[in-house]
Amino acid sequence: MTITFYDIPSTNPGRACSPNTFKARYTLNFKGIPYVTEWVEFPDIEPLCKKLGIPLTSKNAEGSDYYSLPAIYDPSTGVYLSDSLVIAEYLEKTYPGTPQVFPDNTIALQLSFVSAFYGNIGAIWDFITPAACAKLNPRSIEYYRRTRKIWLGKEMEDVAPKGEAAVAQWAQFKNGLAKVDAWYAKNGGEGPFLLGKTPSWGDITVASCLILFRIVWGKDSEEWKDISSWNEGRWAGILEALKSYEIVV
Amino acid sequence: MTITFYDIPSTNPGRACSPNTFKARYTLNFKGIPYVTEWVEFPDIEPLCKKLGIPLTSKNAEGSDYYSLPAIYDPSTGVYLSDSLVIAEYLEKTYPGTPQVFPDNTIALQLSFVSAFYGNIGAIWDFITPAACAKLNPRSIEYYRRTRKIWLGKEMEDVAPKGEAAVAQWAQFKNGLAKVDAWYAKNGGEGPFLLGKTPSWGDITVASCLILFRIVWGKDSEEWKDISSWNEGRWAGILEALKSYEIVV
Repeated sequence: MTITFYDIPSTNPGRACSPNTFKARYTLNFKGIPYVTEWVEFPDIEPLCKKLGIPLTSKNAEGSDYYSLPAIYDPSTGVYLSDSLVIAEYLEKTYPGTPQVFPDNTIALQLSFVSAFYGNIGAIWDFITPAACAKLNPRSIEYYRRTRKIWLGKEMEDVAPKGEAAVAQWAQFKNGLAKVDAWYAKNGGEGPFLLGKTPSWGDITVASCLILFRIVWGKDSEEWKDISSWNEGRWAGILEALKSYEIVV
Repeated sequence: MTITFYDIPSTNPGRACSPNTFKARYTLNFKGIPYVTEWVEFPDIEPLCKKLGIPLTSKNAEGSDYYSLPAIYDPSTGVYLSDSLVIAEYLEKTYPGTPQVFPDNTIALQLSFVSAFYGNIGAIWDFITPAACAKLNPRSIEYYRRTRKIWLGKEMEDVAPKGEAAVAQWAQFKNGLAKVDAWYAKNGGEGPFLLGKTPSWGDITVASCLILFRIVWGKDSEEWKDISSWNEGRWAGILEALKSYEIVV
């Protein structure tokens, strides 16, 4: 019984390029649960979810339905699910013999970490959003530009900060990551992860953002080299330590 | 060998009334480590720390030294320490046989929780600061008013929001706690704590704020009744579950 995993394709040779879907992909790979990927372009997400009965992820600000990926179909239970956290909780309960992403009942702490992590790296999205958009396929680019224009109130070309503002905002991102680094630095040093030797949901969330940066800008970009050099290489180190779980199948 | 614990007195019959010193007190009580309290009024903290060699807690915004309590003296090692987190880490390492406040190597996650928790309850301080000030002894009140006027840029009487602004800011605090509640709600329900049955540093931090609110406003106040009624009684429940560790000796 193989799970169907719905992800968004890109022009990246590995195709996957979404931090939210990467969270579910890392989780499936870490747990060793068999799955196949079904690729869904942005404009096809809502029709597919409606057709299959995949639940809403949330509501848009103006109250309309918001459908997004990742989603999964698990034929062993007949269940369709969306939202990376919902999927992770489902897999944790349904496949208790697999490695846990919330070990030692740390889920409450993990969710607070994720909230604090995103709170600290907010400055990055203006940089990465247009760069990630450019990696999509043409049909998705058109959809992505149109919807983000509504959400962000500007054209994709105007999202990234420029000149001195860009320098200041990049420094803000660096400072935010340094705060996250200070938490990681308390982990006892027996491994690169929040809990030390054991990867968990917080690390998967961090890695899912980092891998986006590495894919979108490329390993040899100034941006990735910069990030890799910060905090004694912590960020490149986390990706490296989770390398076997980033595989796209 | 009994630890000396330096705390700030108040007109509260139990005397203790500081959320930061309560963090260290809960930790000592939870670990069952013998200690005696030495009470230090606000204007006496810096001279005492300088005399005994208790380290700075941090620097003030303008660069001057900032001495604060809690602090401890441990005669078994000859060590003076300040800062509730530093003290907790020290006790954890020095007395490994005692109950752990960072079980299962969760310290990195715990610190992210504390950061996210404070980030969510920021709206409360304008309410509680003047009320807590009023609970101090006269010498400390004078010192507290003078230093907070520099930090906050206003007289103590002007700190608490009034009228419609107060209603909005109290709602903001309630909303912030609701976000923290949503994390707690994921703990599996086997206990009131972040990790379920086991109290840890995050719970101690939450309780140290809650107990301040209860002491300053009183159990029968509108404020405490309001807070106690939120989130299905979670906040009063956490204090109740840690009741045996709130003792002042």
